[in-house]
Amino acid sequence: MTPRAEAFDNWIRRDFRDMNTALEERYFAERRSDVSGVGDDIKQQLLDEGRAHIVGLLGEGNTDEGFDAGFDLLGNVGFYMAACRRHDLTEPSRETRSPLAEASALAMQLGASLGTVPRFASAHLETHNRAVDGVFKSFTTLEDEGTFIAYNTRGALAYIRASEALLRLLPLGVSHPVAADLLDEARDALEAVYRYNEELFQILDVERFFYCVRPYYKPHRVGLREYRGANAGDFAGINVIDLLLGVCRADDPYYSQLLVDKFLFMRPEDQLLLRDCMRRQSLMDAFLEHRDSDSPPLRENLRRFLAVCDAHGKAALQHHEQLVEKFIVQPADEGDLVDNQQLTASGPPLPVLLKALRTLCDLRAGAVRDDIPSRHRDLATLRELASQVSA
Amino acid sequence: MTPRAEAFDNWIRRDFRDMNTALEERYFAERRSDVSGVGDDIKQQLLDEGRAHIVGLLGEGNTDEGFDAGFDLLGNVGFYMAACRRHDLTEPSRETRSPLAEASALAMQLGASLGTVPRFASAHLETHNRAVDGVFKSFTTLEDEGTFIAYNTRGALAYIRASEALLRLLPLGVSHPVAADLLDEARDALEAVYRYNEELFQILDVERFFYCVRPYYKPHRVGLREYRGANAGDFAGINVIDLLLGVCRADDPYYSQLLVDKFLFMRPEDQLLLRDCMRRQSLMDAFLEHRDSDSPPLRENLRRFLAVCDAHGKAALQHHEQLVEKFIVQPADEGDLVDNQQLTASGPPLPVLLKALRTLCDLRAGAVRDDIPSRHRDLATLRELASQVSA
Amino acid sequence: MTPRAEAFDNWIRRDFRDMNTALEERYFAERRSDVSGVGDDIKQQLLDEGRAHIVGLLGEGNTDEGFDAGFDLLGNVGFYMAACRRHDLTEPSRETRSPLAEASALAMQLGASLGTVPRFASAHLETHNRAVDGVFKSFTTLEDEGTFIAYNTRGALAYIRASEALLRLLPLGVSHPVAADLLDEARDALEAVYRYNEELFQILDVERFFYCVRPYYKPHRVGLREYRGANAGDFAGINVIDLLLGVCRADDPYYSQLLVDKFLFMRPEDQLLLRDCMRRQSLMDAFLEHRDSDSPPLRENLRRFLAVCDAHGKAALQHHEQLVEKFIVQPADEGDLVDNQQLTASGPPLPVLLKALRTLCDLRAGAVRDDIPSRHRDLATLRELASQVSA
Amino acid sequence: MTPRAEAFDNWIRRDFRDMNTALEERYFAERRSDVSGVGDDIKQQLLDEGRAHIVGLLGEGNTDEGFDAGFDLLGNVGFYMAACRRHDLTEPSRETRSPLAEASALAMQLGASLGTVPRFASAHLETHNRAVDGVFKSFTTLEDEGTFIAYNTRGALAYIRASEALLRLLPLGVSHPVAADLLDEARDALEAVYRYNEELFQILDVERFFYCVRPYYKPHRVGLREYRGANAGDFAGINVIDLLLGVCRADDPYYSQLLVDKFLFMRPEDQLLLRDCMRRQSLMDAFLEHRDSDSPPLRENLRRFLAVCDAHGKAALQHHEQLVEKFIVQPADEGDLVDNQQLTASGPPLPVLLKALRTLCDLRAGAVRDDIPSRHRDLATLRELASQVSA
Ligand code: HEM
Ligand code: HEM
Repeated sequence: MTPRAEAFDNWIRRDFRDMNTALEERYFAERRSDVSGVGDDIKQQLLDEGRAHIVGLLGEGNTDEGFDAGFDLLGNVGFYMAACRRHDLTEPSRETRSPLAEASALAMQLGASLGTVPRFASAHLETHNRAVDGVFKSFTTLEDEGTFIAYNTRGALAYIRASEALLRLLPLGVSHPVAADLLDEARDALEAVYRYNEELFQILDVERFFYCVRPYYKPHRVGLREYRGANAGDFAGINVIDLLLGVCRADDPYYSQLLVDKFLFMRPEDQLLLRDCMRRQSLMDAFLEHRDSDSPPLRENLRRFLAVCDAHGKAALQHHEQLVEKFIVQPADEGDLVDNQQLTASGPPLPVLLKALRTLCDLRAGAVRDDIPSRHRDLATLRELASQVSA
Repeated sequence: MTPRAEAFDNWIRRDFRDMNTALEERYFAERRSDVSGVGDDIKQQLLDEGRAHIVGLLGEGNTDEGFDAGFDLLGNVGFYMAACRRHDLTEPSRETRSPLAEASALAMQLGASLGTVPRFASAHLETHNRAVDGVFKSFTTLEDEGTFIAYNTRGALAYIRASEALLRLLPLGVSHPVAADLLDEARDALEAVYRYNEELFQILDVERFFYCVRPYYKPHRVGLREYRGANAGDFAGINVIDLLLGVCRADDPYYSQLLVDKFLFMRPEDQLLLRDCMRRQSLMDAFLEHRDSDSPPLRENLRRFLAVCDAHGKAALQHHEQLVEKFIVQPADEGDLVDNQQLTASGPPLPVLLKALRTLCDLRAGAVRDDIPSRHRDLATLRELASQVSA
Repeated sequence: MTPRAEAFDNWIRRDFRDMNTALEERYFAERRSDVSGVGDDIKQQLLDEGRAHIVGLLGEGNTDEGFDAGFDLLGNVGFYMAACRRHDLTEPSRETRSPLAEASALAMQLGASLGTVPRFASAHLETHNRAVDGVFKSFTTLEDEGTFIAYNTRGALAYIRASEALLRLLPLGVSHPVAADLLDEARDALEAVYRYNEELFQILDVERFFYCVRPYYKPHRVGLREYRGANAGDFAGINVIDLLLGVCRADDPYYSQLLVDKFLFMRPEDQLLLRDCMRRQSLMDAFLEHRDSDSPPLRENLRRFLAVCDAHGKAALQHHEQLVEKFIVQPADEGDLVDNQQLTASGPPLPVLLKALRTLCDLRAGAVRDDIPSRHRDLATLRELASQVSA
Repeated sequence: MTPRAEAFDNWIRRDFRDMNTALEERYFAERRSDVSGVGDDIKQQLLDEGRAHIVGLLGEGNTDEGFDAGFDLLGNVGFYMAACRRHDLTEPSRETRSPLAEASALAMQLGASLGTVPRFASAHLETHNRAVDGVFKSFTTLEDEGTFIAYNTRGALAYIRASEALLRLLPLGVSHPVAADLLDEARDALEAVYRYNEELFQILDVERFFYCVRPYYKPHRVGLREYRGANAGDFAGINVIDLLLGVCRADDPYYSQLLVDKFLFMRPEDQLLLRDCMRRQSLMDAFLEHRDSDSPPLRENLRRFLAVCDAHGKAALQHHEQLVEKFIVQPADEGDLVDNQQLTASGPPLPVLLKALRTLCDLRAGAVRDDIPSRHRDLATLRELASQVSA
């Protein structure tokens, strides 16, 4: 890190965070969804101080400190732009180009040279959020934000662990005796996702989350283009699991649209990993292909595979029916905000988003639906096969 | 190539091309810019036959034939979608989602798995347009389309040659005695661009180009999103030259916006190459840094470097003042189409596009303008230095 | 897989395996270490049948079926060459060039095009040994070979799991509250290594292993050069753990020699991964750097980190003092083979190899030795620090 | 570059070079091939000063300055080790391990982390030899060394240019009308190789080259292993040309052995490039496959292709019959050194090396030999075909 980059990082980790916190406390105390006219001096200070840092960094030119340093800096610029959006200093439908000219320039240079969107992505908050002295980066010091980030990180890491177990399984084939260990590991990891989600469900405060945390994840412009907000799922692992298990498929236009829209929100290494998975045979298809084999390890592995699918479906339903419901749908209802255009991180109105999320969790759970390419029939075939054996 | 992919390729190379040609002859004979109601049976046949091929390919699933096969197939799907757009079978402002559902599904699967936009890009027409029995792919058999593609290919290859010479120069440094050969090679290649452009300027028919070739390069939707059209410049080489010479800079928001918008239209190898260049010191900056050195090879190389810059600027001006002017501005004027929303490949109205292209060629030419970060002052400094020496 | 490649694979999985098994039974019954004059007809058949397959494959030319297919084929050619070596049909000190001319040609073509040694490596036996109908590839059908391979695979996979947890920790930093989960996961995985090793220690038959399994892992020539044998450790994970924990260092000539000698025995993806780790700060150095911080998560993580180091050291000692001792040193002693030049997979005489292995396990265990760069002092400092806190 | 790395670089560019020059003048004045007992104080100084730099660099630890900085530093360590070998301070047949312990440690750490041999390679002298103030790195200030390096660089760059033209041709196919330009470019570049070689042949002094330049390219140990010397051909371009033209083939064991032995002497990007070529169909095979087509551009391209083959063969013969003959064979004869074990860069005795080099140039020239897989018959077929057309 250059000295300027370090100074900016320190600012993000302290003054910036404190200003956001002060603003949130005032918004939360006075009123809730309209932030205009509150704390204008703090907002201006945040705007100016950030800009000063960024102007210096832009003038520094191309310092070529390597990918990690560039990605980190992009995160910091992105934090700043997201906070400006949250405090309504910018608003994409009001503008045709981001008024944060220097921040946009720096973000576009970084995004283009790194191969990602020119904004902060969830990796900056979760898997690549470096802690200093025990404290990771966040927009505010609010306890609920810390809780939210920590649990997202835990969930993402557990999904990644499950995906890595499945990836290690691929070259062994579904009938390899040692594959059993890997399937168990994947199931364990998905059960951990479930447990973490449950804890988060219990401890996260709905109002604080809805009014003081989520608004930092809104879409905003960088340069001319608008970019959807970060969401906890912008890492490859979850889709690797979908594709390798076989519950989602890349030739389903719903799912490939989702992938197309997601690629640049992931780190390049994740993009490559996910791309590689798109060309693999799924485990479900492999089990179906060998449905007539009576190799004992194959049958044993099949049982374990189905347990992995169950665990994946269960966590997906929990995400939809508990987390999304409690922390977004209900407060939106209560605040009469369901039709608010700016409610969601990805942009579309809430009911549209909810329908899409329902589809996704139904695919993952293998729900009995024929309007989407749910694999419920194939899963039933395999369950039947597995039960015959244990008989 | 799987047999289905091969059958589709044959269709694109024959029947598809012949149907487009028949339609173009009718449009050109009857009237010009509105194509509705002309040749509806042919249009329907094109739509249906293409769809039949694509449905088969989609059902074939993930055949994992390697990057090249996938990229080629994406090109063919893209040709089909672009022709549907040209014949007004789809039109992005009329729709919220491409009505070509299967083609979109296949294109999105391919684009996501390859790491490019899910549409045909100029590489499919130019640098990666494989000839069969002496004939490369094209939308029609019109001579002017063949001419346009062949000359674009020659221009692109010559730009690439210039860029490769500059890339080989980087590790030698600007004062290396052997660098002179590489600078001469770059200049030669840029002069070849100029010559090819001149020939194209002479032999291409304005009306045929404007009315029968360009319309295949319009923006269209794939799935939910609209993608701008391919243009001859969607390869890294031209930007590599810009950046390595130093006439354009990645911290200039105009230029980084251009790069951000362009990345996914290039092949992944080009994306990586261009990214790598973004972190290099430009030759211009290197010469400026050593302005006080009196090493003879450095001075000799400086003269040759300035000749490369001149050749680059000259070709850029020619592109703008001759090609764009003759083949787009004038026929648009004459056809009263200047304000037509659908005229340009990249989407914006023509006057906006022209202003942006002017900026680009002025940067390349080091024009004396201070409203853009033209390096005319630095170039003057270097020219002064070079002239002192020869004195 | 082309039909020829598939036929060869079937041969390796059946006839080849059965011939080796028949030969092993005769060697084991009659005498033990000198195999000459036993089963010459079988040996000749194995030699000829394999050669016939390979000649066909070589004539097939460059079929470009992708990395995975090439790597798999290299494994099969390598199995054949290793068996020829085991049956003394080739012997490197007797020859200046492998007499298996076609097999060498194919292996060199494949190795060069894949970026690995042109022989079978442990990935072919372990992490990338695809099972067909519940059975993975092996030289013989002997139960002890199956056991050995399965447990090596389990061990390798568990080491890889530990390494992946540590890799995920890096971007979070040693004081991140969520890092605790990852350290626990790494420790769990290393404890699994220990358990698997213990089971293997119990169930593997010493004589069978020593006389019927190990001989397939001897060095042999491919073309002009001699390559050391595969060993269970030819994957990046174990070294990733060494380097990230900080117990081994890339600037220690002993350890860098080991890495230099190992790189091409790993798959390219493992080579890249290990290379990337070589430039990272180790966790131990990170904890030492922050020794004065009193951040509670840092202290908590330190305790867990030390538990990971303990588990790593314990498994290393177990490998050396139990597995190597029981399955190699003792039977070599008993067979009076200690000075046999051809005993070890990597080539050097047994006492030299044992000394090198001792160094390695002492580094991993942080043994109190000052003739090697063991980090026992740094570990003591950190232990002291950790104990103060819990006090 | 860290300050230490920069200080070392300065030393290599000045004091080191001056000490080598002083030693060469004394060797050249007094006697020639045995250097013992001459200039022992200078040798000791060179040894000590270099070691002092290296000890500091090793202590600096892993500074992670990126690939380029690491590769550059490896070159400098390699220059030092090669000079020690040249002055007989080390000699591989005398030792089992390099006595340059710290230099070996640093070189192995760098080589392992970069993915190349742990010694200087020809890229350090040629394509990646950065000039400072007009002067590139060299062992001595002798004019003939400068000439040799400059001409090797020119030759390598011209070969690379030819290879890049052929690479750009691949995706177009052999019948693409624009392919003609690329074939001409390749031929031009190969003719430039010829011209440069001719100049070198004229101006290089035989004795100076043989006695004062070549000795720096001898094999030596790094750590335990001995590595052959650098030679002008350690870049991918030349083999890319061989393979793409089709005059050499990767399934020929002679040629694949050459590739296997060469891979790690190339930069990783060159390794990847060459690997990728190994899976491509050669142009010769493509022309043969379409021998029955009468497409005019195909025939036209065939004529140009044959001209490329001619130019490649001519330069290969020139290298062997002029350069190798005049600058190695003759002085070795005269000095009665033909059987000297230490004469060649790659290690084998001169007659063995010459036979191998003859094979290589005969393959390239398509010589009428049937003891090697020369493609003279296929070339005759194609020549016949090309002549029919022009008739
Ligand atoms: C009839 C001839 C040509 C016309 C009318 C023409 C027109 C245009 C237009 C209008 C654009 C802007 C596209 C958009 O953003 O919508 C463009 C871009 C571009 N064209 Fe052309 N072009 C022609 C030939 C060529 C040729 C032969 C080359 C040589 C390779 C070339 C290179 C480029 C490049 C590199 C760009 C991207 C913008 C840039 O980097 O300059 N064009 N062209
Ligand atoms: C005084 C001039 C030169 C002499 C005496 C010479 C000699 C040799 C020798 C003896 C080898 C074999 C090295 C070994 O394996 O030990 C060799 C290899 C090679 N040299 Fe030269 N060389 C000269 C100049 C050049 C130049 C200017 C080039 C142009 C790039 C060149 C390209 C090659 C290549 C490509 C190889 C690798 C083998 C092959 O692929 O042909 N050489 N040279």
